Order: sequence, then C-alpha cells, then structure tokens
Amino acid sequence: MPKMVDRDERRQEILEVTWRIMATRGAESATMREIAREAGYANGALAPYFANKDELVEAAYLFVFERTNDRIRSALAGLRGVAALRAFLVEVLPTTELTRSEARIVLPFWSRMVTDDRLARLMDATAQHWRDELASLLAQGRADGDVTVATPDTVVAEQLLATAYGLQVLALLPGSPASPETQLQMLDLAVAALRAT
Amino acid sequence: MPKMVDRDERRQEILEVTWRIMATRGAESATMREIAREAGYANGALAPYFANKDELVEAAYLFVFERTNDRIRSALAGLRGVAALRAFLVEVLPTTELTRSEARIVLPFWSRMVTDDRLARLMDATAQHWRDELASLLAQGRADGDVTVATPDTVVAEQLLATAYGLQVLALLPGSPASPETQLQMLDLAVAALRAT
Repeated sequence: MPKMVDRDERRQEILEVTWRIMATRGAESATMREIAREAGYANGALAPYFANKDELVEAAYLFVFERTNDRIRSALAGLRGVAALRAFLVEVLPTTELTRSEARIVLPFWSRMVTDDRLARLMDATAQHWRDELASLLAQGRADGDVTVATPDTVVAEQLLATAYGLQVLALLPGSPASPETQLQMLDLAVAALRAT
Repeated sequence: MPKMVDRDERRQEILEVTWRIMATRGAESATMREIAREAGYANGALAPYFANKDELVEAAYLFVFERTNDRIRSALAGLRGVAALRAFLVEVLPTTELTRSEARIVLPFWSRMVTDDRLARLMDATAQHWRDELASLLAQGRADGDVTVATPDTVVAEQLLATAYGLQVLALLPGSPASPETQLQMLDLAVAALRAT
C-alpha cells in the first residue's frame, strides 16, 4: 500500500528546510536542488508544491511571519493599548534564542528583496500589517490617555517599526552591545516617549 | 609598450563592480568569475588583488562604508553636539537617490554576515565606529546643555543606530510610507527626545 503523504505537511516541511538552509548557509545555498536533497526528496519533487524558487522563498517568508504572529496573538491576549504595544514589540525584538534565530532567518530574505519584486511586495504587505497593528494599539493608548505625544501615530508607528527592524541586524553582530537588557531599556524609553510630559 | 595599470585604481574598479552586481542582481550573482567578466578581465585576474570571495566582499563593504564616512565628514564640518548628530543621521537615512542606493547595496552584505564570520566582525567594527561617533556627539550635546534626557548615552546611541539601520529596509519597500519627509520627522522627533522636558 503506498504511503499516504499529507500535502500540507509536506509543503510545510519544504518551507522549514528552505529557511533553515537560508539561515545557516546563506540565501545562495538555498537552490531548489539543494532544498530537495536536504528534505530527502528526489530532484523535481518540489515542483508540485512550488513552481519556482521565487514562489518557494515567498512562501517560506510568510511561514516565518505567521509563526511570529501566532506568538504575538498569544502574548497580546487580554491586553490593550500601551501594554499590548509593549508586549507586541517584546515578541519581535531579538532578545531570546528564538527571536535571535528569527533575525538570522529574516536577513537573507531582506537581501533577496532587492532583486525579487514578488518578495518585495510580500514584505511590503507584512510591514503594513505590523504598521497597522501598531497604529491601532497607539489609538487605543490615546483613548486610554496613555499616549499623549503630539507626533502623529503614523510617524510613531514607523519609528517603532524601524527600531525593531534595525535591531534584527544590530543584535546579530558578534560584539553587539544590544544585549537583551539594552533592548528592553530601549523599548521602555520608546514607550515612555509616548507620553508628552 | 605594455599598458601600465595603476594597482589601486584596478582594485577600486573591482570593488565597484562587486557591489554594483550585489546591489542590482543579488549577493548570489556576485561570483569571482562573474565579477571578473563584468569588469572585463580574464578569469583569475582578480587573484592578485583578492585571495577569495570573502576577502573581496569584505573590501567592497568597507569601500562603501568609507565613501559614506567621507560624506559625513563634509556634512559635519563646523558643527558639534546635537546639530552635528542631526547632520550625521541625515547623511545615513535613505532619503535621497544616493542614500537609497546605499541601502540597496548594504542589504546583501547584511545577509552574508549570517554565514561569513570575517564580514560579521567587520560589520561589528563599522557599527562600533558609528556608535562611538554618536556617543561622542551626545556627550558634546550634554556639555552644551542640549541633551538632558536621563537615559544613558549608550542606550540613546543604540536607538538612533537601530532606527537608521531599520530604515535601510523599510524605505526600500515599494509601498513604504517612510518617505523622506516622514524620515526627517522621525529624526526631529528623536532629536527632540534628547531634551528632558
């Protein structure tokens, strides 16, 4: 009797192998051939799942993004406004082994964005998703009287996003002073700045 | 009579071709063979200049970094403290065609850092260089009475650096709202936050 393989499960397995190769051996090592080899499939076995490498890389990026979002959703349960905003950013900043590994994963995707328009549009959509979430939490914070700074929410949201993105690079530098403690201090400084004093 | 080629000039030409390929066709396209081809040299002609690809990529990164630093030096002439800090960051933020092209150049280098220890150490050194400059300008600002925030300079410097790094990514996204105007608003917000009010 032939072994039944769950299509979704195999698809997920291919995506995990893809970003693992990109994060440990670099974007250039993640060829369709190498991904198939590492996953233990025959050459050409990826074709029914992904038409080409761009499609595969795009799906792998979305897979990591959704995993982070699942974690954010859990962290935000029962929170709103500034408390939720802080919890959101804690899940994104590379302060733990898990979030540091996500930073290592995301850098090769950023690099590919320069030459892959589809991936660039996807990254646009994911940045917009976070930007909207941050702006909506800032609006809650204003309603609660916890955000009183005169700067428009869109500018504040962009600044928080930029800091989180920048730390994905800085915290990976071998001699980085962006220790988990410093990053949390930076976060508390940014949260404190939401109040006009 | 054989054509005399200036060694430094040829080295610089190789570096320019390297980062141009990385920025337009991606890190994976920048092979020693392809760089030699694009520069119009025979295969193997790069060897007297760079022993291997890692060495070449490292030198290309440093070349772009030094070009940016030359520009920063000019922009800072005659300035000190907070005014100098602002001028420094204006030269780094991707608000013009030139600084946006530098952002496109830097992303593939960040990606290679994940798998290239030498490059990671070099990026460490360059980040440290900017961190020291920012901290020294913050100290001048404190001496001038323009920086009065209670947060330690090291944390403030890291936050400014993280914002600048993060914008290298965000401003490249096709639908980014991080327009030059928004970026300069973010910068003025960060500068205003240096004063405890």
